[in-house]
Amino acid sequence: MHPLNPALAATFAPPVMEARRWLDGVRFAPDRPLINVSQAAPVDPPPEGLRRAIAEAALHRPEAHLYGPVLGNTDLRDAVAAQFSAAYGGALSGSHVAITQGCNQAFCAVMATLAGQGDQVIVPTPWYFNHKMWLDMAGVTTVPLPCGADMLPDPDHAAALITPATRAIVLVTPNNPSGAEYPADLVGRFYDLAQAHGLALVVDETYRDFDSRTGAPHNLLTRPDWDRVLIQLYSFSKAYRLTGHRVGAMVAGHDRLAQVEKFLDTVAISPAQLGQIGAVWGMTNLQEWLAGERAEILARRAAAASALGALDGWRLKSAGAYFAWLEHPFAESSAVLARRMVRDAGVLALPGTMFTPADDPTGPRHLRIAFANVDAAGIAVLAGRLAGLSA
Amino acid sequence: MHPLNPALAATFAPPVMEARRWLDGVRFAPDRPLINVSQAAPVDPPPEGLRRAIAEAALHRPEAHLYGPVLGNTDLRDAVAAQFSAAYGGALSGSHVAITQGCNQAFCAVMATLAGQGDQVIVPTPWYFNHKMWLDMAGVTTVPLPCGADMLPDPDHAAALITPATRAIVLVTPNNPSGAEYPADLVGRFYDLAQAHGLALVVDETYRDFDSRTGAPHNLLTRPDWDRVLIQLYSFSKAYRLTGHRVGAMVAGHDRLAQVEKFLDTVAISPAQLGQIGAVWGMTNLQEWLAGERAEILARRAAAASALGALDGWRLKSAGAYFAWLEHPFAESSAVLARRMVRDAGVLALPGTMFTPADDPTGPRHLRIAFANVDAAGIAVLAGRLAGLSA
Repeated sequence: MHPLNPALAATFAPPVMEARRWLDGVRFAPDRPLINVSQAAPVDPPPEGLRRAIAEAALHRPEAHLYGPVLGNTDLRDAVAAQFSAAYGGALSGSHVAITQGCNQAFCAVMATLAGQGDQVIVPTPWYFNHKMWLDMAGVTTVPLPCGADMLPDPDHAAALITPATRAIVLVTPNNPSGAEYPADLVGRFYDLAQAHGLALVVDETYRDFDSRTGAPHNLLTRPDWDRVLIQLYSFSKAYRLTGHRVGAMVAGHDRLAQVEKFLDTVAISPAQLGQIGAVWGMTNLQEWLAGERAEILARRAAAASALGALDGWRLKSAGAYFAWLEHPFAESSAVLARRMVRDAGVLALPGTMFTPADDPTGPRHLRIAFANVDAAGIAVLAGRLAGLSA
Repeated sequence: MHPLNPALAATFAPPVMEARRWLDGVRFAPDRPLINVSQAAPVDPPPEGLRRAIAEAALHRPEAHLYGPVLGNTDLRDAVAAQFSAAYGGALSGSHVAITQGCNQAFCAVMATLAGQGDQVIVPTPWYFNHKMWLDMAGVTTVPLPCGADMLPDPDHAAALITPATRAIVLVTPNNPSGAEYPADLVGRFYDLAQAHGLALVVDETYRDFDSRTGAPHNLLTRPDWDRVLIQLYSFSKAYRLTGHRVGAMVAGHDRLAQVEKFLDTVAISPAQLGQIGAVWGMTNLQEWLAGERAEILARRAAAASALGALDGWRLKSAGAYFAWLEHPFAESSAVLARRMVRDAGVLALPGTMFTPADDPTGPRHLRIAFANVDAAGIAVLAGRLAGLSA
């Protein structure tokens, strides 16, 4: 095909879609259905009250069908500012918030303002594949920062990777794919590092509502100059089960948002109204419900840690939010194993190779298990099927 | 601010947002309200049936709240393929269609697959500013192809602009900002040119539902190798008043869509479900209603052509779809005139400078009048106010 932008050609295909194709033609016995731990997403719709709020808006609020402001509706921006100010300390206003068509878009938008062709961005590995895909498409070099056995990135190691071309460091906490929750002081050290070198620190907290810790996960928003260093990303998709509405958010300084606005005006024009209306309703009315959701996810995490941690020969490296990062005991690469697991174990999980550079030896040794979609009983069945896999 | 991607820094700010700020602090007398012809967008919500279809889905279809396929829902892709096959000839299937979060995103997505840093894309001027903004952000050089006095681009002129770095030619028909409807044979000559040079031809038909011509506006989809050359873009926003839902579409070959899927997976994950459900409902149920909408727009076009064409000293260059391209009689640049018009005439229109390169002498001489939002009586008032402007 001609013409083809070489940066696009060099970008890998969407991993989740590829994994879904592994199911083609495979039949699962009724008494042994597929256990799908490949994608981290709610499988049920939002609570009825939220659905009704969206339906009412569709029927009776004309503006729900029309363009809104590029950076999002004022009420949602204000709600995010208030909630984040309360959760993290600091004093945000709605003018520090942009609403995006999902959190992936928030990442792309801010990255477009930070780094272009030939620039470098430091990203701990294993990474979130869509981050890597955006950087590849934009001609930005992703500099991998391998996590240690505790699945935490090391700021001193990051410091050694900084070059004159470095523009930003990206952290995802709780992490996708490993589930690791980065300690506050670790995140703080990355902030200090970024600040000292004039870099941006992008902290993607898509899974913050399922963090096992109570209180603020870090104090960055209380730093006096946070708006010159920090960009924080958030998703409404997981907390309020709004994946199909595409609503994410970014917290950043005013200068940064003025640049982000150019990108969003061009790529999005404005975020979808009904999703924003749903997000406001959820933030206002679903905090108690969300606390219950979190408790359920934490229970699943405990079940996963227990069941997967006890597997003979396997090694659970970390677990949190929706994910476990699991070392397997087989000689084959996870890329081969994951396909074999579909047939032999009736389990769909993503191989570590989808989250690591091609030359990273840890990718072939690991699997990402998105346990959040499976209840405790199902997690026991999952562990049993993995235990039954032969070499 | 540091770091700042120089390509973003060099991208201009969203023009519609800038124009809206011109209204700050300006008061309009109750008997002489603002006439806003700055943006081309419906101001009323969609018909009740469509609103009800969306509300029903929000209440009763769980999947309306969950991720869908990256390239869009099958039913909507199939509906677009069927409608386009009927309208243009040819034999499309749903696999030739991608659904995007609005038509702007369709442009960005396909352009990302076509051209990167240092490449060139030929775009007739005046251009649609968001096209220019995307190309700037991506480091792609936009090569202007100035339209003639008839507001049509010349394929021979385009041929002279082709270099080894050229990747694509972009046409918008009916045009934004000029309203010009490109004749079928002209579009065909651009196709031949693109094909002969191994370029892509991107045809943005956001306003196709308001084309004054009957029958197919071109025969490109009947060409045997259309899928190697042509990418056609469409928006559901105008026809079905779905601007707030962000639904657009792209028709392209399978190889192209496989590349586009990478971009959409990364930037969008999937388009919003309720917008897609609304678009299917509209395509299925609103064709007669849409014919009435078109008739009304064509009536407004006739009124605009008549009233603006009769203005002493002014010159109407073209009119169609939602827009008229109007030459003004004053010495000042349209960039100055447009702001003066807010105060002196109570009219908000975008200056030609927002649609042309800085060194293009036609930008300062013209205004874009988005007449579609004003009924025939309002257009007469608009013309009267313009006539009353002093030098």
